Amino acid sequence: MLLRRFYDTKLAQASYLIGCAATGEAIVVDANRDVAQYLHAADAEGLRISHVTETHIHADFVSGSRELAERSGGLLLLSGEGGPDWSYAFAESAKALLLHDGDTFMVGNLRFQVMHTPGHTPEHLTFVVTDTPATDQPIGAITGDFIFAGDVGRPDLLEKAAHVVGTMDASARALFHSLQRFKQLPDHIQLWPGHGAGSACGKALGAMPSTTLGYEKIANWGLQLTTEDEFVAAVLAGQPEPPRYFAEMKRINKEGPRVLGGLPHPALVADAMLGDIIARGDLVIDTRGSAAFAARHVPGTINIPLDKSFSTWAGWFIPFDRDFYLIAGDDGEAAIAEAARDLAMIGLDRVAGYFEPGVIDAWEKSGREVWTIAQMSPAEVARHLAAGDVAVLDVRGQSEWMTGHLPGVHNTPAGYIADDIARLPTDRPLVLHCQGGGRSSIAASVLRARGVANVVNMSGGFAAWAAHGTPVEVERPLAGV
Amino acid sequence: MLLRRFYDTKLAQASYLIGCAATGEAIVVDANRDVAQYLHAADAEGLRISHVTETHIHADFVSGSRELAERSGGLLLLSGEGGPDWSYAFAESAKALLLHDGDTFMVGNLRFQVMHTPGHTPEHLTFVVTDTPATDQPIGAITGDFIFAGDVGRPDLLEKAAHVVGTMDASARALFHSLQRFKQLPDHIQLWPGHGAGSACGKALGAMPSTTLGYEKIANWGLQLTTEDEFVAAVLAGQPEPPRYFAEMKRINKEGPRVLGGLPHPALVADAMLGDIIARGDLVIDTRGSAAFAARHVPGTINIPLDKSFSTWAGWFIPFDRDFYLIAGDDGEAAIAEAARDLAMIGLDRVAGYFEPGVIDAWEKSGREVWTIAQMSPAEVARHLAAGDVAVLDVRGQSEWMTGHLPGVHNTPAGYIADDIARLPTDRPLVLHCQGGGRSSIAASVLRARGVANVVNMSGGFAAWAAHGTPVEVERPLAGV
Amino acid sequence: MLLRRFYDTKLAQASYLIGCAATGEAIVVDANRDVAQYLHAADAEGLRISHVTETHIHADFVSGSRELAERSGGLLLLSGEGGPDWSYAFAESAKALLLHDGDTFMVGNLRFQVMHTPGHTPEHLTFVVTDTPATDQPIGAITGDFIFAGDVGRPDLLEKAAHVVGTMDASARALFHSLQRFKQLPDHIQLWPGHGAGSACGKALGAMPSTTLGYEKIANWGLQLTTEDEFVAAVLAGQPEPPRYFAEMKRINKEGPRVLGGLPHPALVADAMLGDIIARGDLVIDTRGSAAFAARHVPGTINIPLDKSFSTWAGWFIPFDRDFYLIAGDDGEAAIAEAARDLAMIGLDRVAGYFEPGVIDAWEKSGREVWTIAQMSPAEVARHLAAGDVAVLDVRGQSEWMTGHLPGVHNTPAGYIADDIARLPTDRPLVLHCQGGGRSSIAASVLRARGVANVVNMSGGFAAWAAHGTPVEVERPLAGV
Amino acid sequence: MLLRRFYDTKLAQASYLIGCAATGEAIVVDANRDVAQYLHAADAEGLRISHVTETHIHADFVSGSRELAERSGGLLLLSGEGGPDWSYAFAESAKALLLHDGDTFMVGNLRFQVMHTPGHTPEHLTFVVTDTPATDQPIGAITGDFIFAGDVGRPDLLEKAAHVVGTMDASARALFHSLQRFKQLPDHIQLWPGHGAGSACGKALGAMPSTTLGYEKIANWGLQLTTEDEFVAAVLAGQPEPPRYFAEMKRINKEGPRVLGGLPHPALVADAMLGDIIARGDLVIDTRGSAAFAARHVPGTINIPLDKSFSTWAGWFIPFDRDFYLIAGDDGEAAIAEAARDLAMIGLDRVAGYFEPGVIDAWEKSGREVWTIAQMSPAEVARHLAAGDVAVLDVRGQSEWMTGHLPGVHNTPAGYIADDIARLPTDRPLVLHCQGGGRSSIAASVLRARGVANVVNMSGGFAAWAAHGTPVEVERPLAGV
Repeated sequence: MLLRRFYDTKLAQASYLIGCAATGEAIVVDANRDVAQYLHAADAEGLRISHVTETHIHADFVSGSRELAERSGGLLLLSGEGGPDWSYAFAESAKALLLHDGDTFMVGNLRFQVMHTPGHTPEHLTFVVTDTPATDQPIGAITGDFIFAGDVGRPDLLEKAAHVVGTMDASARALFHSLQRFKQLPDHIQLWPGHGAGSACGKALGAMPSTTLGYEKIANWGLQLTTEDEFVAAVLAGQPEPPRYFAEMKRINKEGPRVLGGLPHPALVADAMLGDIIARGDLVIDTRGSAAFAARHVPGTINIPLDKSFSTWAGWFIPFDRDFYLIAGDDGEAAIAEAARDLAMIGLDRVAGYFEPGVIDAWEKSGREVWTIAQMSPAEVARHLAAGDVAVLDVRGQSEWMTGHLPGVHNTPAGYIADDIARLPTDRPLVLHCQGGGRSSIAASVLRARGVANVVNMSGGFAAWAAHGTPVEVERPLAGV
Repeated sequence: MLLRRFYDTKLAQASYLIGCAATGEAIVVDANRDVAQYLHAADAEGLRISHVTETHIHADFVSGSRELAERSGGLLLLSGEGGPDWSYAFAESAKALLLHDGDTFMVGNLRFQVMHTPGHTPEHLTFVVTDTPATDQPIGAITGDFIFAGDVGRPDLLEKAAHVVGTMDASARALFHSLQRFKQLPDHIQLWPGHGAGSACGKALGAMPSTTLGYEKIANWGLQLTTEDEFVAAVLAGQPEPPRYFAEMKRINKEGPRVLGGLPHPALVADAMLGDIIARGDLVIDTRGSAAFAARHVPGTINIPLDKSFSTWAGWFIPFDRDFYLIAGDDGEAAIAEAARDLAMIGLDRVAGYFEPGVIDAWEKSGREVWTIAQMSPAEVARHLAAGDVAVLDVRGQSEWMTGHLPGVHNTPAGYIADDIARLPTDRPLVLHCQGGGRSSIAASVLRARGVANVVNMSGGFAAWAAHGTPVEVERPLAGV
Repeated sequence: MLLRRFYDTKLAQASYLIGCAATGEAIVVDANRDVAQYLHAADAEGLRISHVTETHIHADFVSGSRELAERSGGLLLLSGEGGPDWSYAFAESAKALLLHDGDTFMVGNLRFQVMHTPGHTPEHLTFVVTDTPATDQPIGAITGDFIFAGDVGRPDLLEKAAHVVGTMDASARALFHSLQRFKQLPDHIQLWPGHGAGSACGKALGAMPSTTLGYEKIANWGLQLTTEDEFVAAVLAGQPEPPRYFAEMKRINKEGPRVLGGLPHPALVADAMLGDIIARGDLVIDTRGSAAFAARHVPGTINIPLDKSFSTWAGWFIPFDRDFYLIAGDDGEAAIAEAARDLAMIGLDRVAGYFEPGVIDAWEKSGREVWTIAQMSPAEVARHLAAGDVAVLDVRGQSEWMTGHLPGVHNTPAGYIADDIARLPTDRPLVLHCQGGGRSSIAASVLRARGVANVVNMSGGFAAWAAHGTPVEVERPLAGV
Repeated sequence: MLLRRFYDTKLAQASYLIGCAATGEAIVVDANRDVAQYLHAADAEGLRISHVTETHIHADFVSGSRELAERSGGLLLLSGEGGPDWSYAFAESAKALLLHDGDTFMVGNLRFQVMHTPGHTPEHLTFVVTDTPATDQPIGAITGDFIFAGDVGRPDLLEKAAHVVGTMDASARALFHSLQRFKQLPDHIQLWPGHGAGSACGKALGAMPSTTLGYEKIANWGLQLTTEDEFVAAVLAGQPEPPRYFAEMKRINKEGPRVLGGLPHPALVADAMLGDIIARGDLVIDTRGSAAFAARHVPGTINIPLDKSFSTWAGWFIPFDRDFYLIAGDDGEAAIAEAARDLAMIGLDRVAGYFEPGVIDAWEKSGREVWTIAQMSPAEVARHLAAGDVAVLDVRGQSEWMTGHLPGVHNTPAGYIADDIARLPTDRPLVLHCQGGGRSSIAASVLRARGVANVVNMSGGFAAWAAHGTPVEVERPLAGV
């Protein structure tokens, strides 16, 4: 048996290639859209991808299962559990086989037992693997978003992200029962989860590539609570706000992601075209770092730095239904290939072209205005805040704000900034800050692009504020976290 | 004034970016389809491509002018000379301006004077450039396929490649008159031609990036002959056979090349799909070297090694109207990107996917037959040829064959091999050879794919034959060359 | 706790970065010589490498611990067990701390317990890791070459590779006792071994990145045998012949590997220099594929294709004490960087330069002879073997030979081919074969370079022979395997 | 004849490979230190570098001639003119042949005539090339720093940069005579100069890759002036201040550059080491953009952004005689390879290692201070300047300052900033500015690293100042420019 884990750092997402060396057959579980990576790896190991499956309908990235099945010629296996609302709309056209609890299928000599483990989602499956004929004892389980190292899959995502109202409690109870049933398996089995630290699909995920059932029984809070109500209360408390675009992911993955035939490679566009593009209302994303953007940018462009949160913020601010453009950072083409891959991962396929960073020089040279984001130090902010001649807005997440914030300052998480535009004060400068400066730069660029003129960034963010000994106000801590 | 030359080694083709530093405007002349290179270069130099033009309707590659005009926002300028048969069909839809003899246009402070210089083609233009206001004397001329370093553009291509019968003589005479007129310009001007050594658009092209009118008057045979009839006889003699796909290029470039929006990036296909693809009749091109192909390949695949003749042979053997696939060499993805670029250059855009080189192992492992190309040394060939138990075919160009070949051996240039299939002997092994082994490998793969079973390659080709002292037969040398 | 596994496919070797997210400290265990990979990963995770250690003195690759400690500023921890013969000679100069059984050290909040687990080597350590203060139960163990997935570390390597005569049996017994002691740990712990499938440090290694103690108790033969003598017999049987250069690795790793300050980047050498280099006796390795080498190569060069066995064959044939040169394959510089890395991994640092593949053309053009390796099909070999007019030698491993070989054909594993030169028949062609053609090409090139003229390769190797239904002779199977 | 030009954008320097296709021999003229590019190109063209030469002892980059001769096996040809002070010290040890005026040598069928053309330097040679036996008329000349497109080589460099006092006038006169002699050659010859626009070896260089003698007679001021005194006055007027490190280049190139055996590849250093490195006084260069540096940097590091002026500023501020370190920008390793190449080009070989950009986060996380460069807008500067509570310093070049500067503001070109430290005001903030912000960031970082605390940057530089309609003071324009 061969197992290879593919970990996408930006999505904090794991997918698996599991092969049988004896027969050369292999399966991929929870493929993301960079399907070439699986084809390459299988080739390198002398394996043929005979099966493609996934644990559930993902909400945080676009699934690559359909495309991989098509390009590999492998059989597509999809969950048949969860009821009609959670059935894959494209199953028939993709000639997929539906799986149910208790089903068993072979990949070469490897036996895959299908367990229906609802909770995170109604149709969620877990695959228990046995390396026959060597032993009859399972070696491990692909747990998807059911059990992570140190955490369990959040059962509230469906209600919060996909807007299926009133399902949270029932999902939490289903999860509890799935866990009790799963705990019957032997302690020695390895667990290969679908996410690592940083994913929004749980609240306390660890950074271990794999774990064991025995260890999780000792160290995972979700497996230690044995009373249903206690578990339900705990699992629903303190879950971070899911990104809004998760609803779109669910929809795409259920209806059937578009087959790309390869990741997009945006074409270079001449500097001279930028004016027309902005004028006709197409979104232009400046992917440079926030310091460079603050120093100088083209009016109307939005800053989403190409760092490890790029996909997340792109999901919040880029529309899924129309063309958009990118401005590259200093490393030009390579960075654009990376950005295009990140965007395709969450279904943002419509990159119509890109500009080199020199476009800003060209813009300025042609006699047009460039914008800056003014910076104010924490000391200055403290002074002005006291004098009442600025408004300050904290654009961190709600839970960050609760554990400490500037006195009297309200919170609008960066992703929601556009919703609050009408309520923002316009009579004095609006100072934005986040923890370190990244998110406030994004939010500031969005506000400026939408006509809020007097936006200032607090340099260094809350980290700098706290470090300088300026006063901090704390909200009542969240119960149960 | 800034001049940058872009030289594509495989096409032996030159294009030019000429810019005015004072105003930031620039023109690109004779763009090929890798238009990103011009946009990058202009960006790097702080220039805006305000104009795009070409000297004539190219026959040896697909023009990038239309795509570049679209992506740069530059004005497209096309020849309005040559009569209705040679007018650009897409000029109106691309909002192009038509140019005529005697026209003048400015790119910033640079003055471009349009000269109609028919001969190579009826609509051919030459652009004479003056760097005003510094001087009123021209600095140089973009000569396209009119004058090269050491040669002049061949006037027979239209008849031979584009099948416009009976035009050769008239074209040669037109060329003579164009040359006499052009010789009136001052000796000191630089000439920036459209091709370098190795192009099929002339017969004796030099490897100098530029030359001068004064030097060509001394060193170029085409400018030294002053009698029209003598010139016509000389220019029509000894021209190499043009590749057959040149006709397709002419058609595409006249009607309007497809706008790609970036060079193609073929997607990896799983090894398991190869059988189906071959079965349904799609062409699969194996791009590995001929030694590796001869040692082992998948039945039905055709060998076109990814070397500097790749585009040429691809043009001969890959259909322009249907999907095809590639097998990569050892350097995988990078090589495929290069191959896809080469193919797009001549309008072969329909690469549906590619396989890694491991596909051959996978094919064999799955229990299916692999083929080899048998090799025979010159000494063995000499013996068998004497005994009459093999047939030998020389697949070099006709002019190579004429200057020396194996005794009694006939010639079919590799590109035409498929036309002669019915006439090939089937009662004994057919030994193919070229000069060094590349072309005979291609030809052998084509024959085998079309059912000719007993094909052998003479290892080392004619070079090895001649080096081993085996007898050589010479045809009457060509007159006038 | 964060764990990242670094797997080097060519060495089949695993190293680990384990970090404490709370404090930002991290340890690297069993670093190989590409130390930049650990520094990069630590940087990306926001960790500081505070400790560097290794499980034992490696025999199959050069350790990167010393260099990594120097470049990271981390504390070097080395085994103090195993007695004076197995103590690190450079421990003092590198300011290393010596570890003993029962020692405990902290990396941030992670507790590392040191277990002395002799058997594979006398000084071998295993590190048991506990993620405090969360739990007091261990989460896993870094087992090095003590326990693998499906196998245990071979105790005969010291005697066979490092020529410490008479230690095999004692080592096997020590291993047995180490295993019994280790089995007392809880079933749920994960095991992170030092090698995967393909390593010569065991005989039946699996392709799983990690396993668990509970599962190995069920599925690993080495943990199931409970009688000491039975275990000793089984563990010593059927071990593959270790590469001869393992002795050199041991020596280097004990005395202290040279600090490189970065992997070597060989410089391009002009084609014209090749003649002089060969003439002065410097070794030149042609890294192209065996088909290309067989078709044409420069006399005196040795073929070691740059594939996944490159390091192994380089270890057999390249001297550790003098300069040598490489000939690149088609992908030029990138391939050379890879080759130089592979070579540095096993201490072959003296790459004095490299040639591009065009050097073979240049050689031939200059009028000098090129060599080919003649090929003979299995059918022809069968015929000639019957007629007695060729000698055939099987250059596969001994165990491959024993499970089936050509009738009457003897075996010299490729690595030992030079030792047997005097005994090879010179009166008729010598046909070499291996399983698929790779090793016989290497062996043939070595023989030709040393003056054996009439060497032929059987195309397709034993695989082709067997596939064609030609007769096979089988030796008595090995007992106990 | 084949000619290939290698243009290094950062050095604005051209070198040439000229080959004879008939014999396969080639020469490289004015090689820079990236010698692999010539070896690659020769390989690709099937040429052997049989000769290596240079036009003169360069002052602006380290010559690659010695290394190329060694690695190609080609014969080194050096100027034997210019007298004992300008003779190559390593000529004998490198087995070089000395060239004198009137010498002729053949590279294959190409005839090279040596002309002694002193002026820019005393030993300067020009090579006139004839493509025999085709013609007896020269085709062109390699003019080095004698004649450029639109300019002539500056004769003052020796005095100003290499501190050979009192030679300017004599050199200018020698140049005049060299020009008159050269003008006798035919108009049609091409000129291939050693520099393009942007080089400090002249004052008005054009951006044409080549030119012709006839055209330069019309358009080049240096060839139009026919009175010696008038020429001398003109050629010495308005020459930009040469970088100080030019003296070092001269010395290195005369004594013999170190043979590198390949460009340096700096090794990654762990973040944790930065503190020690700074503490022991080793220079650390932060290569990120100036906006990112201003926002946050490690105390004591100096900012030299990796853009097209990188080599120049590195030459001003990095010592040639001791180790130094780099901090990479966002594109990590690729950028470092580029930086190392740029540095090697001017002889800065002692890059001891590099840090990833994350080192700044790591530094801050470890609780240590980071620095910022405060920014002030032109409007604020105008206000404070009026109020007299800041000092302002213009760090542009002297000629830029003369054509317009802030009222009452003095000028110290950035390269000289360290010389003026003692004279800078310390009682109020010191505002630095250049044209656009790059040079003032470098200067500010140097001042801060040397203890000047209160340094502020004027955002947008003089360009922004002028654009905002703030008053500008103009010095008397330079005569004769």
